[in-house]
Amino acid sequence: MSDILARVAAVIESRKPDNGGDPATSYVAKLFSKGDDAILKKIGEEATETVMAAKDARVSGDAAKVLYETADLWFHTMVLLSQFGLTPQQVIDELGRREGVSGIDEKAARKDE
Amino acid sequence: MSDILARVAAVIESRKPDNGGDPATSYVAKLFSKGDDAILKKIGEEATETVMAAKDARVSGDAAKVLYETADLWFHTMVLLSQFGLTPQQVIDELGRREGVSGIDEKAARKDE
Amino acid sequence: MSDILARVAAVIESRKPDNGGDPATSYVAKLFSKGDDAILKKIGEEATETVMAAKDARVSGDAAKVLYETADLWFHTMVLLSQFGLTPQQVIDELGRREGVSGIDEKAARKDE
Amino acid sequence: MSDILARVAAVIESRKPDNGGDPATSYVAKLFSKGDDAILKKIGEEATETVMAAKDARVSGDAAKVLYETADLWFHTMVLLSQFGLTPQQVIDELGRREGVSGIDEKAARKDE
Repeated sequence: MSDILARVAAVIESRKPDNGGDPATSYVAKLFSKGDDAILKKIGEEATETVMAAKDARVSGDAAKVLYETADLWFHTMVLLSQFGLTPQQVIDELGRREGVSGIDEKAARKDE
Repeated sequence: MSDILARVAAVIESRKPDNGGDPATSYVAKLFSKGDDAILKKIGEEATETVMAAKDARVSGDAAKVLYETADLWFHTMVLLSQFGLTPQQVIDELGRREGVSGIDEKAARKDE
Repeated sequence: MSDILARVAAVIESRKPDNGGDPATSYVAKLFSKGDDAILKKIGEEATETVMAAKDARVSGDAAKVLYETADLWFHTMVLLSQFGLTPQQVIDELGRREGVSGIDEKAARKDE
Repeated sequence: MSDILARVAAVIESRKPDNGGDPATSYVAKLFSKGDDAILKKIGEEATETVMAAKDARVSGDAAKVLYETADLWFHTMVLLSQFGLTPQQVIDELGRREGVSGIDEKAARKDE
């Protein structure tokens, strides 16, 4: 996996209450201490912000906000993955598993029907 | 970047109309041909499905669906990135930029206020 | 309750499988036959479309799309209410219950903290 | 329109800055003062919470949370309507316009294709 993603995942993991994460000083530890619903609300919120950023980008001509909000969304999905004992490497492996001659499209096309 | 993410991004890129993507045979090419709104609707939809999968996983005890839906969400954000001339590497670099001693949390904490 | 909302709710109710709704000819009956997840996906999707419509309205200067998408969102929440044995009248009563001298804001403000 | 919805809409309207709404004491006035994006983020957030509530209701057997979150979602769409110079009456009229022999389904079915 990307070394960076692995490092970010490790930081997130270290913020779990069982790993000594302190809700008083860490935003991620606070999310973990609040539990599933707090994390899931952030997924919905960051997805909405990504949509808004894309709309804004077409007006401003500046895609930087799309990049920034997508990073926020990925970050919070990584918190969710950690909450469920999963890793970004597994997500990447799943994407790789689907990839192939035309595997991604076939997979998505099946789902689209 | 992860070689896998780079390969998936390359496949997505190849599905653009200008790169010969065919909406008749490719789901991603079809998304590109429909434009921003079709892609953004998928972001909202996949985020909702990720939330639902997490709720289901707490009942079933099986986190596989969370993994699967997160992969769907990442995949569609990669289509969005491509639509705006951005790459997953830039998202990863942005996450790396925020990472540090406690950089991720500070960043997010500021935003939380 | 608004007579119109009551009529729309009655039509929705009549589309339930137990009330003779036919998935082959009715979109709502099809949603009911698919179950919770299909309805919830629509909530996420219509909320996203409402957000997109608002962004578009600021560019076009035409708020009609916001009205249209909000109607779609309300309609699908009414399908959800029906699926859970609830009615729009109960939603309106809940809003009325919160309303008062400054009741709405106090309620929301508490939640906001 | 429902008298209650009309009263709630009037309260919301009175919270606009131009109508003397005070962001320091009113949650709705604060939303208006922040502008479109703050309101739209709430739409995405409340939709997500509605989805979560429905999932929880299937486990708990208690639909009250679905009612409560739907009221939150309707309330924030009413703030959005006000922000765009629209009223809940117009939403209800639009729903009424679609209603008919099988108008709602036909409308939605067309959109579904």
